[in-house]
Amino acid sequence: MSTTSVFSEANRVTAQPGSTYITAISTQDRRFALGEGVGTDSIHQTPQYSYAVCVLKTTTSVEGIGLAFTLGAGNDLVCRAIDYLAQPLVGLDIEELMADFGSMYRQMADSPSLRWLGPQKGVVQLALAAVVNACFDLWAKTRQVPLWKLLLDLSPEQLVNTLDLSYLEEVLNREQAIDLLTRAQATRADRSGVLQTGYRGYDTSIGWFNYTDDQIIDNTKKAMARGFTAMKLKVGSDDPQRDLRRASLIRETAGESATIMLDANQRWNVPQALAICHQLSSINPFWIEEPTHPDDVQGHKAIADALAPFKVATGEHIPNKVIFKNFLQMGAMAFCQVDAVRVGGISEFLTISLLARHFGVPVVPHVGDMGQIHQHLVLFNHIAMDHENLFLEHIPHLRQYFTQPALIVDGYYRVPQEPGSSSDLIVTCS
Amino acid sequence: MSTTSVFSEANRVTAQPGSTYITAISTQDRRFALGEGVGTDSIHQTPQYSYAVCVLKTTTSVEGIGLAFTLGAGNDLVCRAIDYLAQPLVGLDIEELMADFGSMYRQMADSPSLRWLGPQKGVVQLALAAVVNACFDLWAKTRQVPLWKLLLDLSPEQLVNTLDLSYLEEVLNREQAIDLLTRAQATRADRSGVLQTGYRGYDTSIGWFNYTDDQIIDNTKKAMARGFTAMKLKVGSDDPQRDLRRASLIRETAGESATIMLDANQRWNVPQALAICHQLSSINPFWIEEPTHPDDVQGHKAIADALAPFKVATGEHIPNKVIFKNFLQMGAMAFCQVDAVRVGGISEFLTISLLARHFGVPVVPHVGDMGQIHQHLVLFNHIAMDHENLFLEHIPHLRQYFTQPALIVDGYYRVPQEPGSSSDLIVTCS
Repeated sequence: MSTTSVFSEANRVTAQPGSTYITAISTQDRRFALGEGVGTDSIHQTPQYSYAVCVLKTTTSVEGIGLAFTLGAGNDLVCRAIDYLAQPLVGLDIEELMADFGSMYRQMADSPSLRWLGPQKGVVQLALAAVVNACFDLWAKTRQVPLWKLLLDLSPEQLVNTLDLSYLEEVLNREQAIDLLTRAQATRADRSGVLQTGYRGYDTSIGWFNYTDDQIIDNTKKAMARGFTAMKLKVGSDDPQRDLRRASLIRETAGESATIMLDANQRWNVPQALAICHQLSSINPFWIEEPTHPDDVQGHKAIADALAPFKVATGEHIPNKVIFKNFLQMGAMAFCQVDAVRVGGISEFLTISLLARHFGVPVVPHVGDMGQIHQHLVLFNHIAMDHENLFLEHIPHLRQYFTQPALIVDGYYRVPQEPGSSSDLIVTCS
Repeated sequence: MSTTSVFSEANRVTAQPGSTYITAISTQDRRFALGEGVGTDSIHQTPQYSYAVCVLKTTTSVEGIGLAFTLGAGNDLVCRAIDYLAQPLVGLDIEELMADFGSMYRQMADSPSLRWLGPQKGVVQLALAAVVNACFDLWAKTRQVPLWKLLLDLSPEQLVNTLDLSYLEEVLNREQAIDLLTRAQATRADRSGVLQTGYRGYDTSIGWFNYTDDQIIDNTKKAMARGFTAMKLKVGSDDPQRDLRRASLIRETAGESATIMLDANQRWNVPQALAICHQLSSINPFWIEEPTHPDDVQGHKAIADALAPFKVATGEHIPNKVIFKNFLQMGAMAFCQVDAVRVGGISEFLTISLLARHFGVPVVPHVGDMGQIHQHLVLFNHIAMDHENLFLEHIPHLRQYFTQPALIVDGYYRVPQEPGSSSDLIVTCS
C-alpha cells in the first residue's frame, strides 16, 4: 500500500541538520468562500474561513509555512502583527533556533509593547500561532520528516526545550514535564499501532446550523457510509425545540451506538445552558461544546457540575495555556479542544497537551487547520504522552486549497508522510 | 472660585437633546515619548504611552473623541480595528444611539467575524473601548455637560440601557442592576459632598522601576509636599532584596501613616509571588498589584488566600466583564482596577463597577487615560453606586497633550466642569 511504503521511505530519511537560515518573513492573507450554509453556527452566520499565513524564507529552497485561523474580517490585522512579531527570527539557523525554541517563544509572546495588546490573546496571539507554526514546519521540512515523526524523534528534554512553561510552575514545571514524557516513552510501542491504523476522525460537517433537517439526515447517512461513527450537530437555536428535534433526527438516523456531539458556539448564558442542556441530554450526547462564553471558567464549571455525566468540551476560543490551566484546575472541561492555529502555535499546543495529560483530560483538538497540522499532533499526543486515542475533528471544506490535503479513508485519517506540517497552500493568482 | 462657578454654570445647562448625527469615523495613532525611566516596570522597560483614538464626526462642529491605551507597537492595529468596528454608527443620531446603547454595544462586541479575533479581548476589544468612549464623549458634549453629570442625570433604567449584561445573568441581571442603582439613589445626597471636595488621588509616579533609590526618596518627599498620602512602587526585581530595600526607603520617608502600594506588573509565577510577597508584607503595604499572570484567576486566588490580610489588586490587563466576574466570584481580587480605556469602554467599565459593587469589592481604576476619563467615572461610581470613596491613580506624564488636563490640588482631583469626557488631545503637526 502506497501509504506504508512512503512511511517506510520517510523512516529511512535520517534527520541531518543542515544550515538553513531564515532570511525573510512574508505574510499572506488567504480567505476562502464557503458554500451555502457551510460553517454556520448559532453565532457565526457568514463565516469566511481564512488563514493569516507566515512564510519563512530561507537560504535554501525550503520555506516554513505557518497558519493562524480566523473567520475573515480582520485577518489582515493578524498578518500585520506577524510582521511585527517575527522579526527576531531573521538571520537565525533553524536548528539552533529550535534547540531552545522555548526561549524565543517567550521572547515573542512577551514582546514588551505588543503584550499590551494581549498579553497572549487576540490578534497578537494568533500572529504568534502563525509564526511558531512556520518554525516547526520549517524544522520538519529541513529534516525531511513529517511533523509527527520530528516530534517523536526528540528526546523528552529536546521536546520540552521547545516549550515555555512559565506561569505553570505550581502545576507543571520543567522536571515534571520531562518526567511525564520519559515515563510514557517506556510504553510507546504499545501505542505505535496507530501509525498503521491511522487516527479515527469525527465528522463536524453533517449538521451546520443553517442546514435543513433533510440535509442533516442525508449528511448523517453519508457520513456513516464513509465510515464515521461520530459526528457533530450545531445547536443554540432561538427555539430550543429546534435543537432537540434535529438532535433526535440524527440519533434516529445514526442509531444508538453512534457518538453524537452538540456544539452551542457560546450561544447561551449560564442559566440558559443549564435549562436547554438538561433537555438535550435525552438524546445521550457525548459532549456539549462551548455552552457559554469561552472566558467563563466558573460558568463552565457550574454547567459541568450540573449536567454530569453529560460532559463539557471547550477550547477553540481559549487563547493561552494560563486560561487552560484554570479550566483544568477547576474541572471545568472534560475534553480539551486546544487548537494549534488559535493558541500560540504548536509549541503552546504541546504545552497545553502536557497540562491536560497531567490532569487526566483528553485532548480532542478543534481544527481551524482542517486537521492538516493536528493529524500530526494527535499521533504525537497519543504515542509520546499516552493521551487517549479518541478521535480528531474532520472538516473537508478547504481540502482543495492544500497541496497535501489530509486523507480520510473509512473514517480514519491516513498517517501523513510528506515532510513538514502539511500546511502548504496552493498558489493562487489573486 | 472659578471651579465652583463653572460647576454651577454646567448645572444650568439643561440637557436638550438635539439632532446630532454621526457622519464619519476617523482614527488617530498618537504616541508620546516619555522621559528617562518614566513608566518603566519590571516587564515593560521601554514604554511609549500611546492612544488609538476614535473620532466621531457629526453634523455639527462637535466631535466625539474616544481613547484606547497601548504601549506603542501595534497601536496602528487598534486604529485599523476601530475602522472596522465603528461602521454601524455612521448615520445615527447620538441621542437615539445612547437611548439603547447596550444593544449597539453587544452588536459591535459580537461582530460575527471580528469576534474570532477575541472574543472581547486583545486588539478588537481595545478598538471597542475607543469607539464606545467616543460615543459617551459625544453624548456628553452634545448635552453640554461633563461626563460625570451626564451619567448622574440618567435614571437607573436609562443608565442600564447603555450596558450589555449578557453572560452575567446568573450573578447580575437587568432587574438587579436597576435595583442596585435605585437603592443607592435614595442616599445620593450623603455622598455628593465629593463634588465639592474633589476625589483623592494617589501618586503612581514616585517609584518607576528604573528610578534610582535617590529619585524614589526625592519623589516621595515631593509627593507628600503636594498633598499625596498614598503612592505606589514598582517591584519585581531580579533580586527581591532590591524591592524590599526600595519599599523600606519609601516607608521610612513617608512614615507609618502613608499608604504604600506595590506593583509587580505580572512579573512572578505563583510560587515566586508567594515567597516574595511574604517578605514585602513587612513594610505593611496596602496592596500587591498584578502579582502574576493577569489571566490566572486561580493563581490570584491562591496568592490572595496565602497573603491575607495583605490584599491583591488587579485589572489593567483583564479584558472583559466575564473574566472580571470570575475574579469576583472566586474572591481573587480585593481591589478592582478596571480601566475604561482597556476594557470595552465606559459602558463595560460601568458594568464591571456594578458587578464589583454587587460583590462588595472597591473599584480603584487603572488610568491608561491618565485619569482624564476616570476622574468622571469615580465620581459616578461613588455617588450613584455607593462605591467606596477611596482614591484614584494619578499619572502626570501626558498632561501637556490634553486640552483640559486633569487638575490635582492638594492631592485631590478637582471636579472637571467642561462638557464631555476630558479626552480631547491637542492637535499636533506631525
